[in-house]
Amino acid sequence: MNKPTTTADFATPKVTTGPLAASRKIHAVPEAAPDLRVPLREIVLSEGSGEPPLPVYDPSGPYTDAAATIDVEKGLSRTRIDWVRERGGVEAYDGRDIKPVDNGNATGKHLARAFPARHRPLRACEGQPVTQLEWARAGVVTKEMIYIAERENLGRKRMLDRAEAALADGEGFGASVPAFVTPEFVRSEVARGRAIIPANINHAELEPMIIGRNFLTKINANIGNSAVTSSVEEEVEKMVWAIRWGADTVMDLSTGRNIHNTREWIIRNAPVPIGTVPIYQALEKVNGDPVKLDWEVYRDTLIEQCEQGVDYFTIHAGVRLGYIHLTANRVTGIVSRGGSIMAKWCLAHHKESFLYERFDEICDIMRRYDVSFSLGDGLRPGSIADANDRAQFAELETLGELTKIAWAKGCQVMIEGPGHVPMHKIKVNVEKQLRECGEAPFYTLGPLTTDIAPGYDHITSAIGAAMIGWFGTAMLCYVTPKEHLGLPDRDDVKEGVIAYKIAAHAADLAKGHPAAQLRDDALSRARFEFRWVDQFNLSLDPDTAREYHDETLPKDAHKVAHFCSMCGPKFCSMKITQDVRDYAATLNDPSMGAVTAEQGMAQMSEKFRQMGSEVYVDAEAVKASNRTL
Amino acid sequence: MNKPTTTADFATPKVTTGPLAASRKIHAVPEAAPDLRVPLREIVLSEGSGEPPLPVYDPSGPYTDAAATIDVEKGLSRTRIDWVRERGGVEAYDGRDIKPVDNGNATGKHLARAFPARHRPLRACEGQPVTQLEWARAGVVTKEMIYIAERENLGRKRMLDRAEAALADGEGFGASVPAFVTPEFVRSEVARGRAIIPANINHAELEPMIIGRNFLTKINANIGNSAVTSSVEEEVEKMVWAIRWGADTVMDLSTGRNIHNTREWIIRNAPVPIGTVPIYQALEKVNGDPVKLDWEVYRDTLIEQCEQGVDYFTIHAGVRLGYIHLTANRVTGIVSRGGSIMAKWCLAHHKESFLYERFDEICDIMRRYDVSFSLGDGLRPGSIADANDRAQFAELETLGELTKIAWAKGCQVMIEGPGHVPMHKIKVNVEKQLRECGEAPFYTLGPLTTDIAPGYDHITSAIGAAMIGWFGTAMLCYVTPKEHLGLPDRDDVKEGVIAYKIAAHAADLAKGHPAAQLRDDALSRARFEFRWVDQFNLSLDPDTAREYHDETLPKDAHKVAHFCSMCGPKFCSMKITQDVRDYAATLNDPSMGAVTAEQGMAQMSEKFRQMGSEVYVDAEAVKASNRTL
Repeated sequence: MNKPTTTADFATPKVTTGPLAASRKIHAVPEAAPDLRVPLREIVLSEGSGEPPLPVYDPSGPYTDAAATIDVEKGLSRTRIDWVRERGGVEAYDGRDIKPVDNGNATGKHLARAFPARHRPLRACEGQPVTQLEWARAGVVTKEMIYIAERENLGRKRMLDRAEAALADGEGFGASVPAFVTPEFVRSEVARGRAIIPANINHAELEPMIIGRNFLTKINANIGNSAVTSSVEEEVEKMVWAIRWGADTVMDLSTGRNIHNTREWIIRNAPVPIGTVPIYQALEKVNGDPVKLDWEVYRDTLIEQCEQGVDYFTIHAGVRLGYIHLTANRVTGIVSRGGSIMAKWCLAHHKESFLYERFDEICDIMRRYDVSFSLGDGLRPGSIADANDRAQFAELETLGELTKIAWAKGCQVMIEGPGHVPMHKIKVNVEKQLRECGEAPFYTLGPLTTDIAPGYDHITSAIGAAMIGWFGTAMLCYVTPKEHLGLPDRDDVKEGVIAYKIAAHAADLAKGHPAAQLRDDALSRARFEFRWVDQFNLSLDPDTAREYHDETLPKDAHKVAHFCSMCGPKFCSMKITQDVRDYAATLNDPSMGAVTAEQGMAQMSEKFRQMGSEVYVDAEAVKASNRTL
Repeated sequence: MNKPTTTADFATPKVTTGPLAASRKIHAVPEAAPDLRVPLREIVLSEGSGEPPLPVYDPSGPYTDAAATIDVEKGLSRTRIDWVRERGGVEAYDGRDIKPVDNGNATGKHLARAFPARHRPLRACEGQPVTQLEWARAGVVTKEMIYIAERENLGRKRMLDRAEAALADGEGFGASVPAFVTPEFVRSEVARGRAIIPANINHAELEPMIIGRNFLTKINANIGNSAVTSSVEEEVEKMVWAIRWGADTVMDLSTGRNIHNTREWIIRNAPVPIGTVPIYQALEKVNGDPVKLDWEVYRDTLIEQCEQGVDYFTIHAGVRLGYIHLTANRVTGIVSRGGSIMAKWCLAHHKESFLYERFDEICDIMRRYDVSFSLGDGLRPGSIADANDRAQFAELETLGELTKIAWAKGCQVMIEGPGHVPMHKIKVNVEKQLRECGEAPFYTLGPLTTDIAPGYDHITSAIGAAMIGWFGTAMLCYVTPKEHLGLPDRDDVKEGVIAYKIAAHAADLAKGHPAAQLRDDALSRARFEFRWVDQFNLSLDPDTAREYHDETLPKDAHKVAHFCSMCGPKFCSMKITQDVRDYAATLNDPSMGAVTAEQGMAQMSEKFRQMGSEVYVDAEAVKASNRTL
């Protein structure tokens, strides 16, 4: 059922480029490594605002850099390869040949065109440290760590300079978000396994980022063609589109044919970590029959993807034979694809999962490329009824056991979490995960807080995601409006990303991230001062904000209108409050807020009357005045 | 700037009628009052499901009743007038004349057509009890209370019959949601002020409902034309549209001209309680100048609206002179319209608020019609920076003081709450409100958990709304995507209502409402069994769910497809799990879930192999089969 894709009609992916409204890409240069250029986005405010540009975290890569030239056929610049080589201990080698089965034996018009260039893969030399965890433990601060410290600090310097630290008054539930992130702090968090830097040494196009609860809450967007629909071009654009709106990592969940080639196009053009679920491709290699899966085909797939540069693998090694019967009385059984594949395999062979039994070997492979584990929750609940049941928690306990093995092998690890969970059962998930898994970063899908709103599961899950992020989840996997119903298109990807940026930011605010509130405050000031355009530009989605405003008040003049459409020009609460404050300012009493109510009011009332009680602007006067309209 | 509305071109409002997909209106007859017909909606499931129809709470009135005839020119049936008269103690009287100023002195083509009928208003005879609170205290179970008990119990009987009570395992934070609601329970909750039944004796078209934290969490939708845009027709349809999707009450926040006539059309056609903010209309009567407001014009407006049948009034009587200076250093000052009007009045006159000083008299007026108080939070925060500040909490303390006065006068009271609040500051709002206001129902706007997403504030606020609903808020005031940007249109109203139905339901689940999970479970079963149409019909918005599904798999045959578009026909996790379960069933071992892992797995593996290890359906076979495709 794939769309036919011939070499002839394979189009070079058209991707969205150019900065967001009023934004520009700038690059910070860390003191500790002056050769690095750490990207951030500055939102430029209107001249009259008297405010400096607001820097925001920016995972969108060169695509939003007006100065960058994008050529999807060539892929992004492979800057990071030098960092890896500088550290040493790696070797280039020929790598595994691409086989027809890697693309589902697609041929002719069904085979998607291969990415034009082929890079020789790197791997660790025998016995040499290569993962960020190994370096961190050895006390080495990598360039990735320096880069990340600079990246995460964005905005904090200013906040600290302004002595606005008092702003951060959150509840962190045991998190230790520092006032300022140093490269050494990054190293120490990675060393103790509390954060990961998903960064395959073969993903040289990567702009490094970190996942850990003492850093900004991150979000992941899933893309991927399925057997039923979508093409390579669409997937590359979805990746670019997802990071444009703020996705920090992207998972390619493709199934069907052309998995290898689709992934190659994505990775070579991705500045963010790319995650996959290798069992999906392994399953394609055995014609979709889980029973036929074996260690050899899985191992071969791992190496194939390690060499391509996948940054993290979801591995459902916690779906043990002994847990499967625990799902028999569930309302929705096993809903994880990976989990159900492994369950079927275990049942058919009546054997313990080969992922569990071969876990040591999996670690050895992944370590050599620094591919991070995302230990999958194959038994996650698929409905409110199944939340926090024994099957789910039994698996989580096994994930804790596997975390310790992976750490001992030098691998970075994060842990996947549910799913569908009502609000009152969310917190215990985080507490149990932190306890069982030694504080390894938690990476949760939602959770959806009710099952009754298909079509709106970006909302049912944003509720759970905000809460679980607050409680300590390091990365939130988005859910789009199409969840349970269909494959997300470009619009759905954006809806999902924005909903999750909201959840992640709400979590950062509640945790007391020291700089998170700067953007809220800047936007609220713009709102209060009727700087409409600044309000649009500071928002997560300037285009939609502007469009919604234009629906009611389409005239450009209204962008500086000192009123909003809800109340009209004659009466507006913000206008009135502003009048009150303007009036207060005329009292020439900067300690206004400190005087007693009686004194202040007495003074003000007198002066107000002296001014003719007329700070309120008459509607007709407003109409007549071009300045205010 | 009003749209011109001539009598000639005033169209009879076209409203949306007809049942939701696969739904039918049925009426329950309470044992305690066999003359009552309590509406509910039943969602009929597919024949093959083997499941009975699922009853759901239904505020949509006769508009969704296939058997009802709707005539907006006549208004809804005035059934409840008999209930009021039966109780006695009321008198009909001529009522106040409608004055030109009631419609902003609009004339000619600017004056909206009046509602055709005029009903003589009722009021309490001097010294007679009339409010639900007064009857409740007197030990009288009113018909409204019987009606509400029946309405709230929907689904619980079945749940109790099935002995599924164990389902409800929430955390109620001190709420006392009963397993079963009796009329006496309703009476006792109203008597102690912990719930209100907003039901003006002149709103005879009302289907009574209750607001209290031991009942289902309710949602309110705001509508209303502003000086800038929208017409009477649009507002009536917005009301009908809002309740179609689940709004439990509707506030008419109209400003500008034609306020009286717009409201009359709305109330006469509204089966849900209608709330207003009388100061908005009072302000129009003094040409929009807050300084010119006085008790007389306000009092006159209250009586005008009491006679029309408004069910609850937002009254910002807590904005005291002495609190205003507390807002001077805020990022967004005073953002409540009512609050800023009163602040301006207080400053200009250097007087205590006349709403505060005349509170006794306001109570006396409202009591005679049983209009409930919604004590407004005029100093609510308009940004994350201003949340939980002294201004907000000072006002809340005053609202507690006013609650006691209103109760002493026999009036029903709820309390409005914020606004913009980061997650970690939400809970203290509920705790303080319950404490200060003697557990009077809390009615909150959102709260928005971040300021940075204009265009998506239905989501930023659904997060806060779900949480505050869980913590104990009785009614959630919706926020639409247009918040801060423009007036919501019909689509925005629906988006806002659905987001808030999600929040309210998530709150009910988390509180442990005994029947809330029935719908989640029914939908999840449908999902798991690939009953696509049942999944759509059980959702909050069947139309959107179906539309999204059709985008990927448009063929009707796919509605019964045993796969979904995410994974395709060849591989689907739910399909695999279902296979596993089907297989388990063949073991003829109903205690499957209870056997030990080892026993069960050994048995299963053997039988699985005996069956040929082939429960997995081949893709080509699926394609060839009309039955499954």
